[in-house]
Amino acid sequence: MKKSLLIAALAFAGFSLHAVAASEEPILPIKPPANINLGMVELGKKLFFDPRLSKSGFISCNSCHNLSMGGSDNLPTSIGDRWQQGPINSPTVLNSSLNFVQFWDGRAADLKEQAGGPIENPKEMAFSHILTVSLLQTIPGYAREFKQVFGKDAIDIDQVTSAIAEFEKTLVTPNSRFDQWLLGKKDALTETEKEGYTLFKDSGCIACHYGEAIGGDSFQKMGVLEPYKTTNLAKGREDVTKQDADRFLFKVPTLRNVELTYPYFHDGAANTLTEAVDIMGQLQLGKKYTPAESAKIVAFLKTLTGDQPMILMPILPPSVDNTPRPNPFGK
Amino acid sequence: MKKSLLIAALAFAGFSLHAVAASEEPILPIKPPANINLGMVELGKKLFFDPRLSKSGFISCNSCHNLSMGGSDNLPTSIGDRWQQGPINSPTVLNSSLNFVQFWDGRAADLKEQAGGPIENPKEMAFSHILTVSLLQTIPGYAREFKQVFGKDAIDIDQVTSAIAEFEKTLVTPNSRFDQWLLGKKDALTETEKEGYTLFKDSGCIACHYGEAIGGDSFQKMGVLEPYKTTNLAKGREDVTKQDADRFLFKVPTLRNVELTYPYFHDGAANTLTEAVDIMGQLQLGKKYTPAESAKIVAFLKTLTGDQPMILMPILPPSVDNTPRPNPFGK
Repeated sequence: MKKSLLIAALAFAGFSLHAVAASEEPILPIKPPANINLGMVELGKKLFFDPRLSKSGFISCNSCHNLSMGGSDNLPTSIGDRWQQGPINSPTVLNSSLNFVQFWDGRAADLKEQAGGPIENPKEMAFSHILTVSLLQTIPGYAREFKQVFGKDAIDIDQVTSAIAEFEKTLVTPNSRFDQWLLGKKDALTETEKEGYTLFKDSGCIACHYGEAIGGDSFQKMGVLEPYKTTNLAKGREDVTKQDADRFLFKVPTLRNVELTYPYFHDGAANTLTEAVDIMGQLQLGKKYTPAESAKIVAFLKTLTGDQPMILMPILPPSVDNTPRPNPFGK
Repeated sequence: MKKSLLIAALAFAGFSLHAVAASEEPILPIKPPANINLGMVELGKKLFFDPRLSKSGFISCNSCHNLSMGGSDNLPTSIGDRWQQGPINSPTVLNSSLNFVQFWDGRAADLKEQAGGPIENPKEMAFSHILTVSLLQTIPGYAREFKQVFGKDAIDIDQVTSAIAEFEKTLVTPNSRFDQWLLGKKDALTETEKEGYTLFKDSGCIACHYGEAIGGDSFQKMGVLEPYKTTNLAKGREDVTKQDADRFLFKVPTLRNVELTYPYFHDGAANTLTEAVDIMGQLQLGKKYTPAESAKIVAFLKTLTGDQPMILMPILPPSVDNTPRPNPFGK
């Protein structure tokens, strides 16, 4: 299939699957999360902020998915246990419940499965599921809260990751100026921003960046018309399937809050939105945007910053005498 | 002067300087902060949470003074730039405005002076005041907010540290059960807790741990009756004055929220409150508490946990194209 046909087909799929009555547009406003278990959310928030889920006692989920910074760490690749350099850019946790799979290579089916990964990754939090559970069990404040939320006497890792995932489901960012416009506020966007949106659609960006998350709905090859040059070792979907055909296929990232989630791409190599737009145009669409065109698309992209989650910092239940202590510097 | 006389004199000083009409007790309830500039507080809160004040873009004030964990990092010594091991235990930021000087060795007169230290300490945030100011100046959200708060066109480091200090002034923890008892709620403490408080006074702890902060008001020698054994290199006040007489004199830490601020002492070597009480009794007071006595004092100490500050996480203004990017792994 020719690339242009592929793009057209994807765009069509995007339309047919995702555009519903509320809008004629291929981008949909963010819906408030439904079916939320508030007890799990509050527990999950504590766990999300708790660095005791790492070997060092220093790294929490929020370290790399910082809710003060667009749910990201604004670093090309993250800093893990003992300052190890992470292999890939940390994607934002904001609106991550809208992704069809989790991680850049889609190796986790959902947020619950994702949440277990970094805890036991030796380059990230460098802990283990068994140690996490046995540590939490010693802390009376946690033991009570898990029991209240899950109704069981013993904590297990499924409860831990379920609670974190439930908290993450609440981290959506509605009410961006673009969503206000989609929902009928006709003066929510400037002319330049609207022209940027038109160009975003007409030049084909929309083929992959559509729907509620404006991305997060398919794997696509990084470097369609030209290879993407990077020193990053990640092979994307191939790392999961071991199929040559999947080389450099990555999950399309959401463009929600993209103004806050710099730097861009799986290797974090693009520092600015202008760079990212220009490279994407050239490699994925075979287009060389003029500076004026890039600027319009960037102006549109900045309208996608939504209301950031209002997070009241949790107060973590303290360790007690028999709680294992963290090990930041020892073997 | 004999040690017992010294202690008596200090206790007397504590009484005469600090006990006022509200209470006959040598410990005073925490007062709400007054003369607060709310604009500075909101700006200072952003700066407190902003890892762009570090070279790596990863470490913020909150990394080591975590407001989810009693304003501390619950580590013996902190983790700094490139995972360097800090030289001393991070004291809690909670109620730190009540300290007579800042840092364990008192090398900063106040919170404003303190705030500038870690930013440019190569073992902590490893940045510089000049780089901090020039970085902040590029960020439109900060440039506007500094101008609104300070009424000047240019940001300077004095504004940065003043704002952080103003935020920190709000981080007090009133309404502990002990304060409720001081303020007249007679059933706020159990009999055991009251016995612990009596023992705390009668055995001499109160000589150094008195007043609103229950500490933070004098330098005292670590190891009065017996030397304190540690591998930690800090010499306390001597590091500032270069006087032999000041060797191992440290600022007495606050006991407010001490249940949350483990591990204890300037080297973080005591993991539990029981250990800390036993070692203090033996080294500072020449007392060997029975397990029952220690338990009572620990029960009292746990009544000092106050209402933790309610912190709505700030949303940090994003970097723009010309904002210098962090340098976590490079030279």
